[in-house]
Amino acid sequence: MLAQLQRNFDLLRSNRIFETFVILVILFSAVLIGAKTFPINPAYIKILNILDWGVTFFFLLEISIRFLGEQKDFFKSGWNIFDTLIVTVSLIPIQDSELAILGRLIRIFRVLRMVSIIPELRVLMNSLIRALPQLGYVCLLMFIIFYIFAAIGASFFASINADLWGDIGVSLLTLFRVMTFEDWTDVMYETMEVYPWSWAFYLSFIFLTAFAFLNMIIGIVVKVLEEEQEREDEASQLASHGGRAEPDRYELQQQIAELKELIEKKL
Amino acid sequence: MLAQLQRNFDLLRSNRIFETFVILVILFSAVLIGAKTFPINPAYIKILNILDWGVTFFFLLEISIRFLGEQKDFFKSGWNIFDTLIVTVSLIPIQDSELAILGRLIRIFRVLRMVSIIPELRVLMNSLIRALPQLGYVCLLMFIIFYIFAAIGASFFASINADLWGDIGVSLLTLFRVMTFEDWTDVMYETMEVYPWSWAFYLSFIFLTAFAFLNMIIGIVVKVLEEEQEREDEASQLASHGGRAEPDRYELQQQIAELKELIEKKL
Amino acid sequence: MLAQLQRNFDLLRSNRIFETFVILVILFSAVLIGAKTFPINPAYIKILNILDWGVTFFFLLEISIRFLGEQKDFFKSGWNIFDTLIVTVSLIPIQDSELAILGRLIRIFRVLRMVSIIPELRVLMNSLIRALPQLGYVCLLMFIIFYIFAAIGASFFASINADLWGDIGVSLLTLFRVMTFEDWTDVMYETMEVYPWSWAFYLSFIFLTAFAFLNMIIGIVVKVLEEEQEREDEASQLASHGGRAEPDRYELQQQIAELKELIEKKL
Amino acid sequence: MLAQLQRNFDLLRSNRIFETFVILVILFSAVLIGAKTFPINPAYIKILNILDWGVTFFFLLEISIRFLGEQKDFFKSGWNIFDTLIVTVSLIPIQDSELAILGRLIRIFRVLRMVSIIPELRVLMNSLIRALPQLGYVCLLMFIIFYIFAAIGASFFASINADLWGDIGVSLLTLFRVMTFEDWTDVMYETMEVYPWSWAFYLSFIFLTAFAFLNMIIGIVVKVLEEEQEREDEASQLASHGGRAEPDRYELQQQIAELKELIEKKL
Repeated sequence: MLAQLQRNFDLLRSNRIFETFVILVILFSAVLIGAKTFPINPAYIKILNILDWGVTFFFLLEISIRFLGEQKDFFKSGWNIFDTLIVTVSLIPIQDSELAILGRLIRIFRVLRMVSIIPELRVLMNSLIRALPQLGYVCLLMFIIFYIFAAIGASFFASINADLWGDIGVSLLTLFRVMTFEDWTDVMYETMEVYPWSWAFYLSFIFLTAFAFLNMIIGIVVKVLEEEQEREDEASQLASHGGRAEPDRYELQQQIAELKELIEKKL
Repeated sequence: MLAQLQRNFDLLRSNRIFETFVILVILFSAVLIGAKTFPINPAYIKILNILDWGVTFFFLLEISIRFLGEQKDFFKSGWNIFDTLIVTVSLIPIQDSELAILGRLIRIFRVLRMVSIIPELRVLMNSLIRALPQLGYVCLLMFIIFYIFAAIGASFFASINADLWGDIGVSLLTLFRVMTFEDWTDVMYETMEVYPWSWAFYLSFIFLTAFAFLNMIIGIVVKVLEEEQEREDEASQLASHGGRAEPDRYELQQQIAELKELIEKKL
Repeated sequence: MLAQLQRNFDLLRSNRIFETFVILVILFSAVLIGAKTFPINPAYIKILNILDWGVTFFFLLEISIRFLGEQKDFFKSGWNIFDTLIVTVSLIPIQDSELAILGRLIRIFRVLRMVSIIPELRVLMNSLIRALPQLGYVCLLMFIIFYIFAAIGASFFASINADLWGDIGVSLLTLFRVMTFEDWTDVMYETMEVYPWSWAFYLSFIFLTAFAFLNMIIGIVVKVLEEEQEREDEASQLASHGGRAEPDRYELQQQIAELKELIEKKL
Repeated sequence: MLAQLQRNFDLLRSNRIFETFVILVILFSAVLIGAKTFPINPAYIKILNILDWGVTFFFLLEISIRFLGEQKDFFKSGWNIFDTLIVTVSLIPIQDSELAILGRLIRIFRVLRMVSIIPELRVLMNSLIRALPQLGYVCLLMFIIFYIFAAIGASFFASINADLWGDIGVSLLTLFRVMTFEDWTDVMYETMEVYPWSWAFYLSFIFLTAFAFLNMIIGIVVKVLEEEQEREDEASQLASHGGRAEPDRYELQQQIAELKELIEKKL
């Protein structure tokens, strides 16, 4: 009987209509979150809260169905763990105003369940996450550049404007601002009054980061194109003759040579 | 006799000189629209209005000729429907000052007829429109990121600056502003006074959107290059030997093997 | 004797040391132009002017040598015409203060002679110029988008801020500013006070131009890669066996078939 | 015995644990540099200074080990020279407050040793440095564009705002600011009050630099892809049949032809 139930849950879980309904509930919860940010009549707030709990309990139900359907395999997927966490944490009743903020945050993150439910988004997200380590060393190099310039900035400019260059943390933020070109000349003109040559600091920083950034992008493009190429090659190899690899020209040459030998021997 | 007329209209429609003349009239209508935005002598306004009606009637005539030339096929093209709509709406005489604005807008959109008349632009526009659905899921993911950050922003920063974070709609606009790096540090410094750690909110938002955006571009580039590759492969396949596909090396190998067998059997 | 002289001039013209010397003089003239922008002692100005005339006469001499060396072919190159124009115009003595500005401009443009002298830069510049027409239709489409939005902007926002939206010319400039994200929110917030929905105007403009721009870039990349591919294909075709094209697999198949036929007939 | 010692040093140098330890010390020295930028208790400063000297002496020890391990080959690597320089300079005791700044700078640059220690970063850095000369001529062209516009700017706008256009140096900086779109309209609106047509100066500058920049990027992408292609081609050539190159179709064709001749002669 349990196995029967499980099979039913599994069917329900992979049912198209059920999936669409879950997406609609997530969308509805997102709208609820958005609605709460507008000034609303206190009477409506009560309704919103009730709807919010309704969403929470529906999510609990849905997670349970999926858990009962997949059982042991359930926690093998990172997305399932993420879903369970979001749902269980939002179940905890929070009265405390300090923790209320956390409760609100958790409710907002429920919108991320959209990613875990729609397969195409899950694929996209996975590919994004997979692309991250490729960037590892370039990011490290970028951080070293940032750190060195921030240390120089904090050493020389701290007395000019403590808000921008007070310590290395603030300096890193200021440099990020310079990298986005956000009012970077204001920052520069200020330090140029004390150190007239400080424009060289900003320009070399901009060139270095722009150059490293450019290399990062080109690196990714080349990597992506290479993978594409490999996948294509494999596909073409497998496509021809039921998985049997195509012989290369060297093998053809050898076969013709063997043929020649055979004819010479026989005649 | 009607068929004769239709043939004549069809000839006229596809006539080079006629086409060039239509483009010149559209250009002239664009100049008229531009001219009206400058402060002008009321005496000239009257002339401009007369010219404007002249353009409208010419467009009516041109659409009629094209309609009579193509007849049933006319409304199969989206561009023809667009043209007809623009021309017929601009025919309605508008006295009401409220609707006058709409009339003006319609007149401005007549410049878009340039796209429907010049084939190269029509091709370009079609390719732009065709590229849109490819971006679908990345745009959805981007919107989810925006929505979550806007909800967080509206929850925490609404009391700091209602103009920027008052509700989720305004927050979305503010985040778009942050994404374009437009005075984003002003927005950040303001919230950092209350929440000193809020720089993490902005930086993670910038990194996430930049990363998603980068992936979107790379995705498009790869897609475009793939299509290019496919088109090339097909072309090279068809080009050689009147559409007969080139044999692969596996087939060559088999033919040589058959040859060997034949020789061994015969001798 | 004239032919002898011409040959000498031709040799001089293509002499490495002479070329390097010309480049040095151009560099020197660039430094002169730069030096004049600094506040300088009137006594030195006289020296600068003398040096300036020295440069002008050297250029005249150099152009003459090149002209005498190449003679009829001289004006076939656009770069030579450009050089001659720059040099002859800077020969005209200008006393009039109005025209003095023009004289200064011409002297500045002499720096461009660097491009006409260094072959690598000339190649680069030519490739830049050659890439321009490819962008033709995308630029036209971009301009249509700009024009329509500028017409809408001038129609609705002129009364809000005449400096930004007064007429279609100013509106085009403002839209270019919006496209570069330069304080675009200031422009938007101003109009949003009168038309709260005007953010849609800016956002749709930004999306359209960004999208058209993206397509332009991808279009160029694809074009460049295609050309690269073609050049490579041609090179590999010609490289193998002294310009004789490699046979394709179809031809190999046919040869093997002929061989088979031969054996069957003979035995 | 010396050879024995050298072998031991060589083993130590390439030891994984030793390498990790060196990286940790570099990280620690980076943290020290960062810590010093925060306001700290004078008592702790003493501790920081002692730790700083500890790091310096450890670096001296490490460089010595690596030198004794590699001996003659040591100074063949640019990275080793860089390391030695950084370490020896930071050994000089500096009391003078003027030179103290230099001492601080040298200590900051020790973070760069991270690049020389981690092989992946060294590879990345080398590829960055190798990519630089490719950009040479485009950078020169860019500089010529900048110089000409700066000379024009300094000639015409110096009287309007000496801070921005006072001399050619300041003008170059202002133009760089315009290229990054940093409050460029403020600069433009100011000069447009005197020269209403000066927008053409800014727009043509933006278009020229954007276009040159675009070409630079595309040039790099094409170069990178070409290199990639070449490396792939070589790899596939060498991979098949122990370095023996694959015969091309032309050779196959000739072998078949020879076979045919043989059969015809023999039978």
